[in-house]
Amino acid sequence: MTPLLLSGERFRVDYRVSGTEAEARAKAEAICVEQTVEFPRELLPAGPIPDEIVGRVEAFEPEDPAAFRIRISYAVECAGGDLVQLLNVVFGNISLMPGIRVVDLDLPEAVTRWFGGPRFGREGLRELCGVRRRPLLCSALKPMGLSARDLAAQAHAFALGGIDLIKDDHGLSDQPFCRYEDRVAACAEAVARANRITGGRTLYLPHVSGPADQVFARARRAKDAGAGGLLVCPALVGFDTMRCLAEDDSLALPVMAHPAFGGSLVSAPGNGFSHGALFGTLTRLAGADLSVYPNFGGRFSFSREECVEIAEATRVPLGGLAPSFPAPGGGMTTDRARDLVEVYGRDFALLIGGGLHRRGPDLADNVRHFVGLLEAL
Amino acid sequence: MTPLLLSGERFRVDYRVSGTEAEARAKAEAICVEQTVEFPRELLPAGPIPDEIVGRVEAFEPEDPAAFRIRISYAVECAGGDLVQLLNVVFGNISLMPGIRVVDLDLPEAVTRWFGGPRFGREGLRELCGVRRRPLLCSALKPMGLSARDLAAQAHAFALGGIDLIKDDHGLSDQPFCRYEDRVAACAEAVARANRITGGRTLYLPHVSGPADQVFARARRAKDAGAGGLLVCPALVGFDTMRCLAEDDSLALPVMAHPAFGGSLVSAPGNGFSHGALFGTLTRLAGADLSVYPNFGGRFSFSREECVEIAEATRVPLGGLAPSFPAPGGGMTTDRARDLVEVYGRDFALLIGGGLHRRGPDLADNVRHFVGLLEAL
Repeated sequence: MTPLLLSGERFRVDYRVSGTEAEARAKAEAICVEQTVEFPRELLPAGPIPDEIVGRVEAFEPEDPAAFRIRISYAVECAGGDLVQLLNVVFGNISLMPGIRVVDLDLPEAVTRWFGGPRFGREGLRELCGVRRRPLLCSALKPMGLSARDLAAQAHAFALGGIDLIKDDHGLSDQPFCRYEDRVAACAEAVARANRITGGRTLYLPHVSGPADQVFARARRAKDAGAGGLLVCPALVGFDTMRCLAEDDSLALPVMAHPAFGGSLVSAPGNGFSHGALFGTLTRLAGADLSVYPNFGGRFSFSREECVEIAEATRVPLGGLAPSFPAPGGGMTTDRARDLVEVYGRDFALLIGGGLHRRGPDLADNVRHFVGLLEAL
Repeated sequence: MTPLLLSGERFRVDYRVSGTEAEARAKAEAICVEQTVEFPRELLPAGPIPDEIVGRVEAFEPEDPAAFRIRISYAVECAGGDLVQLLNVVFGNISLMPGIRVVDLDLPEAVTRWFGGPRFGREGLRELCGVRRRPLLCSALKPMGLSARDLAAQAHAFALGGIDLIKDDHGLSDQPFCRYEDRVAACAEAVARANRITGGRTLYLPHVSGPADQVFARARRAKDAGAGGLLVCPALVGFDTMRCLAEDDSLALPVMAHPAFGGSLVSAPGNGFSHGALFGTLTRLAGADLSVYPNFGGRFSFSREECVEIAEATRVPLGGLAPSFPAPGGGMTTDRARDLVEVYGRDFALLIGGGLHRRGPDLADNVRHFVGLLEAL
């Protein structure tokens, strides 16, 4: 047998495993095997495969009466140098087993150095937008069904009002009633025109999706049309597709991650990922400068505690990777703004949709109102 | 406002929505809005947007004491002609809401014609493998940690024994101890050599994954090296990436879908997709000729009923798309084979891993034993 090339470096994953102690210990052993060799232990050739390749239980503690917290380490080489395989080792097969949830990732430099992380991060994004202290303000072009021209008029009004970020609604793709190229060209132009009038720096982020063999070309067209960033749904197009877009030096655009289709990864308490691990750590590894998620108290189901956990994970040290902006959204209204600052401080991007339209028909004025509220915080 | 280009054709999604009748009715309304315009209904401009673009509740019935089954239709144009946007409309934002599960998809020809579906399907795959009547036999090259050379020796033995399909273990990517190119070249050659000896037609399916900007190049190299198909994990690389690989005429290879990382999409009873919708319908839309999933009674958690549902969804009419092979796996042993036929008939691919090694050290002989069992069914 060829000797294995292993550095001895390992990364660690904390799992919450439900059941009695005996059940949890059995599951811990199963995870070690399932996520690596997926082979009967007793048939493994003696040596580095059972000693190094198979996962290793590093800690085992009661978490609450119904579950245990189990730390398992894996040889960094098992994750093969890329995000897809890292996700595969962390949660590939065991996603199919009940009662196992990834609660935390502890990744050494030997893993984080595979990733560029957020290209701009909090500081870079503040510089791009020319906003030093207040939270950023972001809205989406809506509703689906408007023409490119109508959406561009909306974008123009938002930018005239001095909004920081305008994203396509994540439901806009390349529909016959609003083609991607038409929309991107019209909206980028409308925002540039407004910026020339105001002297501001509003960024327009088109939603880049579509067939897997066209995503990169769409991003290229966004750049060429003058887009200021990209909106990507990693659970739909793949986390590594987002990473590639974020790390592409020929684009060099900030990336906003949208959680569409990703809810199942956090929704089952005994499965998937903790909110912090998914919307913080993984989204940051995958290069997002902003991580959108539904805020507590809105029309979705995240708790205040889960949102705090996300915000934490966007800023704690992660190798040398820049911190990303939490971008809480979903049913936000004026009176929630102070509540947000209590939880997030001032380093977040407020994503406001319907609330911005509900205030009245003058969108630019509505934006000014919200920017004023954020400045006063 | 530009007039909308809408054909009037709609596709239908059945959701299982938990709660009281009042809660379920409110959720049904919310889904119609959330998955399309994501905008306050009262602010929508009158006309085609509220009339056609917003989802429409088509049916509402009690499913069981805790839930309702709700049928919602959407204009086909909302799904923009591609799989990513179809998934986005079906389950994008509502993946983040509790108590909503996709149980069935009813897609008209206007949607199914966007997709090539399984290139070979059941019939084509039987022809490729030269197997007319019995279930196909498939195994995986394991364990992670073996060199390309050792895995090739394993592949050679499997093929000598007359196995139909050999896939890489889904945990094999491009690790330093077993590089993708080395493995694919060595295993494809080993299988071709065995086929020349036996006159058989064993197919080798390397696992194609890795960075999003390298997946297609890896598939190309697999083809050039003589691989007989591709193993793809759609939940890791993206469902549409799998579709692109399946529909690529320059590859023209059968595709086997592996469920790694996809478990969360079915695991929460009140979230995600039914087993049939995910491992049957969507996997078939995304072009897989074979859909791997953990069989009932193995070391995973799928029930017999859920597996029956998957098998059903792989073969029921779906536009003009070919039926795919259910490929139940995970902890299969000899004595389960008859049980499988009871559930699946003879049109399935038996995926056997550890059981094939446990029988003894002569892998070719072990394969012959299992092929014999399948022939006797």
